[in-house]
Amino acid sequence: MDYDSGKYKPVGEVLHKKVGRFLLRGWIKRKRDMKEKVFVLLRDGSGSIQCVIEDGKVPEGQMSAARKALVESTVIVGGEAHEDARAPEGVELKVDYVEVVSFSEEFPIQRDLSEAFLLDVRHLWLRSSQMTNALRLNATLFSAFRDFMANNKYLEVQGPEFVSGAVEGGSTLFQIPYFGKKVFLSQSNQFYLETFLPGVERVYSVMPSFRAEKSRTRRHLTEFWHAEAEASWMQLPELMDFEEKMIKALAQGLLDKHEKELKAFGRDPKVLEKVVETRFERIPYEEVLGIAQKKFKYLKWGSDLGEKEEREITKDYEVPIIVYHYPSKLKPFYHRPNPKDKGETVLCTDVLAPEGYGEIIGGGERCWRLDEILTRMAEEKIDPKPYQWYLDVRRYSAHPHSGFGMGLSRVLTWMCKLPHIRDAIAYPRTMNRYYP
Amino acid sequence: MDYDSGKYKPVGEVLHKKVGRFLLRGWIKRKRDMKEKVFVLLRDGSGSIQCVIEDGKVPEGQMSAARKALVESTVIVGGEAHEDARAPEGVELKVDYVEVVSFSEEFPIQRDLSEAFLLDVRHLWLRSSQMTNALRLNATLFSAFRDFMANNKYLEVQGPEFVSGAVEGGSTLFQIPYFGKKVFLSQSNQFYLETFLPGVERVYSVMPSFRAEKSRTRRHLTEFWHAEAEASWMQLPELMDFEEKMIKALAQGLLDKHEKELKAFGRDPKVLEKVVETRFERIPYEEVLGIAQKKFKYLKWGSDLGEKEEREITKDYEVPIIVYHYPSKLKPFYHRPNPKDKGETVLCTDVLAPEGYGEIIGGGERCWRLDEILTRMAEEKIDPKPYQWYLDVRRYSAHPHSGFGMGLSRVLTWMCKLPHIRDAIAYPRTMNRYYP
Repeated sequence: MDYDSGKYKPVGEVLHKKVGRFLLRGWIKRKRDMKEKVFVLLRDGSGSIQCVIEDGKVPEGQMSAARKALVESTVIVGGEAHEDARAPEGVELKVDYVEVVSFSEEFPIQRDLSEAFLLDVRHLWLRSSQMTNALRLNATLFSAFRDFMANNKYLEVQGPEFVSGAVEGGSTLFQIPYFGKKVFLSQSNQFYLETFLPGVERVYSVMPSFRAEKSRTRRHLTEFWHAEAEASWMQLPELMDFEEKMIKALAQGLLDKHEKELKAFGRDPKVLEKVVETRFERIPYEEVLGIAQKKFKYLKWGSDLGEKEEREITKDYEVPIIVYHYPSKLKPFYHRPNPKDKGETVLCTDVLAPEGYGEIIGGGERCWRLDEILTRMAEEKIDPKPYQWYLDVRRYSAHPHSGFGMGLSRVLTWMCKLPHIRDAIAYPRTMNRYYP
Repeated sequence: MDYDSGKYKPVGEVLHKKVGRFLLRGWIKRKRDMKEKVFVLLRDGSGSIQCVIEDGKVPEGQMSAARKALVESTVIVGGEAHEDARAPEGVELKVDYVEVVSFSEEFPIQRDLSEAFLLDVRHLWLRSSQMTNALRLNATLFSAFRDFMANNKYLEVQGPEFVSGAVEGGSTLFQIPYFGKKVFLSQSNQFYLETFLPGVERVYSVMPSFRAEKSRTRRHLTEFWHAEAEASWMQLPELMDFEEKMIKALAQGLLDKHEKELKAFGRDPKVLEKVVETRFERIPYEEVLGIAQKKFKYLKWGSDLGEKEEREITKDYEVPIIVYHYPSKLKPFYHRPNPKDKGETVLCTDVLAPEGYGEIIGGGERCWRLDEILTRMAEEKIDPKPYQWYLDVRRYSAHPHSGFGMGLSRVLTWMCKLPHIRDAIAYPRTMNRYYP
């Protein structure tokens, strides 16, 4: 075997050129054994092509190896490409050379496609076109986000994962033994991002965040890729505009490269085009509460809006909505109280994805004055001691600033119209799932 | 205060235009109080500019506020820019308006610049030009790496951080309580990356990896940003070429944007130009062992090369060297045995940075046949049970492949000629350091 050579072509190139002699290497995705020939759908990283191997057209030893090779065997094939309307991609390779690099055992993913089984064999399911499509869209989403932030002069930074304090409250903290001490896994990089501001003014990070979520919803994971940003001087209206522009840029990024994959997921690209073209409504909390109250009578001002309430609120929207001014008591201490209602609400905003998907972004203005944040901590009965470093951003260089956090897999779930967040990430982690 | 308006200019723009009337906002980086005027060095995210505030040129209330404001106070200043050779950047702002947005308390970083103290106040030290330079170079390094991988048709993916097995051996595993069970934090994404290959052939990830390192060296952290890649069909010579091209691309990325910052770190850009232009030597293990043996007499064939040996080996080199064929017993089971010496060595390669820096990349061909890897596991007395999913990549779709892992902060440490890896990362984590 000679693997180094440039003589192998990617399947995608053969499908594009349609004619000529090619040497390919890849895996048997599907196979049909006939009396005098074998049809093989050969997959590589760039696509799949139908190959036909006929008795008499290849040496007998090669023919019997081809007959013996099961699905997911690794093969090298050489042959002549030609257009054939009956082939899945309209091109077929008439094989004159077959080499089985390795014979696969019987592939476990056959008829059983139950969700639980596919999660058990996630490492094998990753090679399905459903997953490779999701992976490609995910990679585009990550780079579209970073490009958008760079274009807006945000500097990419990283924060620590090992931290000594909570951001989002103690109930979802993972605690780790750390050389005889205890540390936590980061729930959010926000507090750290704020410390970068007096040096560089606009920062973002894309990192895993960890939440010991006991909730079994279609949108929660115990570890997720968190896109977060903080910006000096930014206030709520500007933040809402920024978030809207950002989501439009992400949708456009997927549209630019992945119309075909979006359609394969059942997502009409026109819907994302509408997201790009339509202004997102800005709606105060009390107004969206009204929508939810029609179905959930028990809700009253101050009630939290969870997954099911957000599903009700957003199910008839086609584009995201930007909800603002949530009641202060629903939000952590770092949100800035609304000066216009004496702090009954905070200057925060959640972006809710339409069609029932719900929250994809949470953000807002931060308490930026030392006295103000100390008052909020006292009200919430939070000991300021472990937060001294965070408070220092108010002691030295205090200034108005805002930021947000976005769950990238949630965005992908919505944009691709996926039924569950685990369909948007390679190795989803939940309460009961940490293998493989 | 009116923060939303576009009337504020970044300092960088003023330094560039040199003349005109500008309104700026930022922080007092340095201050000198004279009898009739105050010199303020105003810093924002784009640079620093000297501002002069004179008695009589601003209202008395503004003057006294300016006199009262300590270093790191947040200010808005308006005035006329003009060229002045005595000013640090050659431009000075003659101030006619001052507003102190917030008065800073006395800034703790004054004369004490000991390493331990600066780590304690890392959240404040981040705004030093030394750290903001490192942050900018780091951001460029991350994007240069991703660009290089994308240009070579590698797909960006993510793996899990919560894992059920070790990659690099049990001694440096962090174990976490997980809903009544135990999981580990990922030491490397390699095994997961290999599972993507039969679907997409070339993948990379940039993620935090975690190692419970007890070693107090200048190059170890308990969490670090790990750039990793795996490629189908790739073999050792091609991998070495790829790694060399990649490092050259990273060096070029820094040179393109950051000559000034490199010089500020004492790194002559010519040295990185040499890295870009010079072919890296490929040297087998036994030959570099010879270099180390001159100083460390106790070394013999099979000895591990740690930090101090690598320092000796690389101290006289100006560009990285690529070391290959390490003894099998020094490397984990997944490395492919060298067929030419019956597996005494493995088909692996480490890239060592010059000037004493040592290892920045580890990689090699992977054991790709099921029987071969099972033999290796048996030799190492490793129970294959928790590795079934990893072994499945050999059961179905087995094929030759290679990969590597690179510590991004190690690369930055070397390229910027920094004394310690903690100078290359915002919040370094070590055995004794997890605050702030």
